[in-house]
Amino acid sequence: MTKKYDIGLIGLAVMGQNLALNIEDKGFSVAAYNRSSDKTTSFISQRAEDKNIKGCFSLEELVKTLSSPRKIILMVKAGQPVDMVIESLLPYLDEGDIIIDGGNSHFEDTDRRFSELQEKAIHFLGTGISGGEYGALHGPSLMPGGEEKVYTQVEDIFTAIAAQTENGPCVAYLGPRSAGHYVKMVHNGIEYGVMALTAEIYDIMRKALGLKPAVMAELFQSWNQTQNSYLLEITAEILEKEDPETGEALIDVILDTAKQKGTGKWSAEEALNLGWPVPTITAAVNSRSISSFKDQREKINSRLGGFDRAEVDQSGFLVKLEKALYLGTIIAYSEGMSLLEAASSQYDYNLELAEVARIWEDGCIIRSNLLQPIRNAYLNEDFVHLISADEFQADFTKHVQALRDVVSTVKTLGLPIPALSSALDYFDMLRSKELPANLIQAQRDYFGAHTYQRRDKDGSFHTEWQDIHNI
Amino acid sequence: MTKKYDIGLIGLAVMGQNLALNIEDKGFSVAAYNRSSDKTTSFISQRAEDKNIKGCFSLEELVKTLSSPRKIILMVKAGQPVDMVIESLLPYLDEGDIIIDGGNSHFEDTDRRFSELQEKAIHFLGTGISGGEYGALHGPSLMPGGEEKVYTQVEDIFTAIAAQTENGPCVAYLGPRSAGHYVKMVHNGIEYGVMALTAEIYDIMRKALGLKPAVMAELFQSWNQTQNSYLLEITAEILEKEDPETGEALIDVILDTAKQKGTGKWSAEEALNLGWPVPTITAAVNSRSISSFKDQREKINSRLGGFDRAEVDQSGFLVKLEKALYLGTIIAYSEGMSLLEAASSQYDYNLELAEVARIWEDGCIIRSNLLQPIRNAYLNEDFVHLISADEFQADFTKHVQALRDVVSTVKTLGLPIPALSSALDYFDMLRSKELPANLIQAQRDYFGAHTYQRRDKDGSFHTEWQDIHNI
Repeated sequence: MTKKYDIGLIGLAVMGQNLALNIEDKGFSVAAYNRSSDKTTSFISQRAEDKNIKGCFSLEELVKTLSSPRKIILMVKAGQPVDMVIESLLPYLDEGDIIIDGGNSHFEDTDRRFSELQEKAIHFLGTGISGGEYGALHGPSLMPGGEEKVYTQVEDIFTAIAAQTENGPCVAYLGPRSAGHYVKMVHNGIEYGVMALTAEIYDIMRKALGLKPAVMAELFQSWNQTQNSYLLEITAEILEKEDPETGEALIDVILDTAKQKGTGKWSAEEALNLGWPVPTITAAVNSRSISSFKDQREKINSRLGGFDRAEVDQSGFLVKLEKALYLGTIIAYSEGMSLLEAASSQYDYNLELAEVARIWEDGCIIRSNLLQPIRNAYLNEDFVHLISADEFQADFTKHVQALRDVVSTVKTLGLPIPALSSALDYFDMLRSKELPANLIQAQRDYFGAHTYQRRDKDGSFHTEWQDIHNI
Repeated sequence: MTKKYDIGLIGLAVMGQNLALNIEDKGFSVAAYNRSSDKTTSFISQRAEDKNIKGCFSLEELVKTLSSPRKIILMVKAGQPVDMVIESLLPYLDEGDIIIDGGNSHFEDTDRRFSELQEKAIHFLGTGISGGEYGALHGPSLMPGGEEKVYTQVEDIFTAIAAQTENGPCVAYLGPRSAGHYVKMVHNGIEYGVMALTAEIYDIMRKALGLKPAVMAELFQSWNQTQNSYLLEITAEILEKEDPETGEALIDVILDTAKQKGTGKWSAEEALNLGWPVPTITAAVNSRSISSFKDQREKINSRLGGFDRAEVDQSGFLVKLEKALYLGTIIAYSEGMSLLEAASSQYDYNLELAEVARIWEDGCIIRSNLLQPIRNAYLNEDFVHLISADEFQADFTKHVQALRDVVSTVKTLGLPIPALSSALDYFDMLRSKELPANLIQAQRDYFGAHTYQRRDKDGSFHTEWQDIHNI
C-alpha cells in the first residue's frame, strides 16, 4: 500500500511554499500541487528537497495521495481562481473531505462556497492567514471559520504551525461560515489604518521637521521599545535601507503611489453597510486611492501650491508625535474591533473578541503589545468601548492633548493627515454626550417631512416649518 | 369615447400629491392611483378638487385611463415596492409604454429594471427628483436617465414642471440606463456633506462660542446673503423656530440622533468602489451613524469626559467660520462631481457635468449660487478639478487659512468636526505633489512581496528587506 499524506496544498507561490514547509517542519506530510508544473518541480527539487513533501502533477494525483478524510489547503488568488480550483477538485473528492481556503477571500464568497459545498457534503473552512511570507514559514496567525466539528479535524495541524505565545498558539475556532475570513478582512483593515498613521507621522517628520530617513529610523526603533509592534519594527528597517543602485535611502527612491488588494476597501464598505464607522481605516483606504492620482495632484499643486517647509520646533514635538501615533493606533484597533462586534451580531458569528485579540498577539502583520490589553479589555464584563476601557482610559486622558497638538499644528501648516484627523474626530465623537445631529434631524424634517425625535418625550414629531402645504 | 389622460401617477404620499398638482397646474391631465384607496379619495376630494386629476382605484383603471403611449410616474418607496408596482402594472401595459421611477432607487436596481423591461419592450426612465415637498409642488430638479428617444416623449411635461432658471428648466436628459438615479444619489451625497458641515459649524457656535439659537439664526441668514443656498436658508429658519410646547428654541428640544435613508451611504460605498474618495460625504454618513449610539456615547463620556466650554475669542472667529463653511461646501460639491466623473467613465454614462450643475441651480435641496461657477468650471476644456478651477482658485488661496484656523482651534478644544477636517485633508491631499505612499509601498513589499514602483524608472521592483527566504 502506498503511503498516504496528511494534508494537501494547492498553490505554490511563496506563501504556499512557505506554509507547506512550515507544516512539514511540524511533522506532517504534505502533498503539494501547482497549476503550472514547473513551480512544483522546482519547489520539490529545491526548497522541499529531502522533506516529507510530495509534488503532485494533477489534482487527481493530489487527492489520491491524501489520507481520508482529505484535507486540502488552497493558497490561490482570491476570487474566481478559488472557484475554479474547487470545481476541478470536486470530481475526485468524497463526502467528508475538507477544503480549506487560506486566501483573502471576500466573506460573502466564503458564505456562498460554504453553502454550495455543504450541499455536496464537502466541508469548507474559510481561513484567514496573516503573517506574510515570513509568518507562513515560521508561524502565522490563523483565523479559521466554518463548522467547529470540522475545525477539530485540522486543529492539530493548525495549532502546530501557528505562531506560539505565552497565551497559546495564534489560532482559534472563530465561528460559523465566513467568520474567519471576516475577521481576516478586519485584521487587514486595521493594518491599513496603522500603516496610514505611520506614513503620516513619517510625512510630518520629513516635511515639517526636515528629518533624514536614518534619523527617523532611529526614532521608530526607539518608539518600538515601548509600543512594540511589527509595523513599527519594519518601518524602522525600511527607513534605514539603502538603495544599492543610487546609494540614496531606498525610501526616497520609491514612488508615492500605493496600491491595494481590496481587504481594506471591504472593511470600509462593511462599516458603511453595518453602520459602525471605521473612519481611520476608511481614511487609509482613501489615501491610497488619492496617492494614485499623481498627475492630477501635480497639476493641482501647480495652481494651488503645496506644503511649504515650515519651522516646527522639534523639541517636545517628537514626543507628541510618538503619543499621537500610539493613540491613533489604539483607535484604529478599536474601530476594527467595534466592526467585528457589529458583524458578530449581524451575521450571528458569535465571535469571542478576546480570542480574536489573543490570536493576533503574534504571527500576523498587526501583532503588537497592544493586543494583550485589548484582550483583557474584552474579558471585562462591563466592556463598552476600547477607548474608555480600564486598559486605555488613562493613556487617552494623559496623552490625547499630544494628539490634538499634532493634528492642530500640522493642519495649520497644510500637510494632509487624514488618518490622524479621523482618529481624533472618532475619539471626540464617541465621547460626546451631545452631537449636532439635532440640526440634521430638523433639516430633514424641514425639507422632507422625515419627522424627528424629542429629548423630552418619545415618539416622532413633525413641524410645519413653513406653510408650504396650504399654498 | 372617454377622455384619455396625459400621465399617470402612482403613490399619493405628500411628494406624489404635490407632483400631481404641479403637473396639472402646467396644463396636463393626471390619472392618480394609490394602493390604499382612502388616500386617493381624500386627495381627489380635497387638494385635487376641481382639478384635471382623476382618481383611479385599480391599476387596470389607471392604465385604461391614459392615452398611448402611456406615461406612468411611480412615486413609491424605493426598493421592493417599486418592483411590486411594476409587476402589477405589466399585464395591462402595451409595448412602447413608459414607466418613470421618480423615487430614490439604487442605481443598480434601476439598471436591472431597465433591462428587464427592455425585454418586454416597455420603456423605463429612472428619474431622480429633488426638492422635497415644496419642490415637488413648485418646481423640482429632475434627473432623468434612460433612452434619449424615450425622454423626448416626456420632455414637455418634465420641462414644464421643473424649477425654472435663467439658464433654462432644471431638467436635462442625463444619460443611459441608471444615469439619472446615479446623479440623484450623488446629489444626496453632497446634501449629506453640506448638512454635516453646517451642523458642525452650529456645534462650534453653541459649544465653543456660547451663542444662542436666535443669534446663530441671524448669522446664518447674513451668510446666506453671499453664499446663498437653500440649506443655509432653512438652517437660519430652523434656528429661529420656537417650540410651542416649551417656549424654548425648537432646536434645543430635538434629540441629537440623526437618521438616514441610504443615498448618502450609497454615495460613500460607490466612492470606495470606484476608488474616487468622497471623504467629507463619508464623514457625514459616519456622523449620522455615530449620533445614533447615544447610550454608548453617554457611557464613554462619563469615563473620558467631553468637551469643556472653552473661551474662544469671537471677534474674527465668526468670519473664519463663515469662510470655513464656504470652502468646506465647495469641497463637498467637488467630491460629488469627481465621483460623477469617475462613474461616467466606469458606467459609460457620458455625463455632461456642466449640465448636471445647471439642473441643480434651482429646485433641489443643494441649490446654491455655487452651481453657476461650478457649471462654468466644467465648461472649461482645461478642467482638472474644482478646487483648482479658475472659478474657485482665488477663494481657496485667500481663505484656506481661515479653514485651517477653525480646524486647528477646534481640534485643540476637543470638539468633533469630522466633515470639516475631512474636507481640509482632502484639499491638502489633492494639492500634494508628494504623499507618504512611498512608505506604504515599502511596507507592502516588506511583508507581502507586493513589489513597488520607483521614481527613476518604470517597472515593478522587489527588495529582499530581510533574508527571510534563505532560512
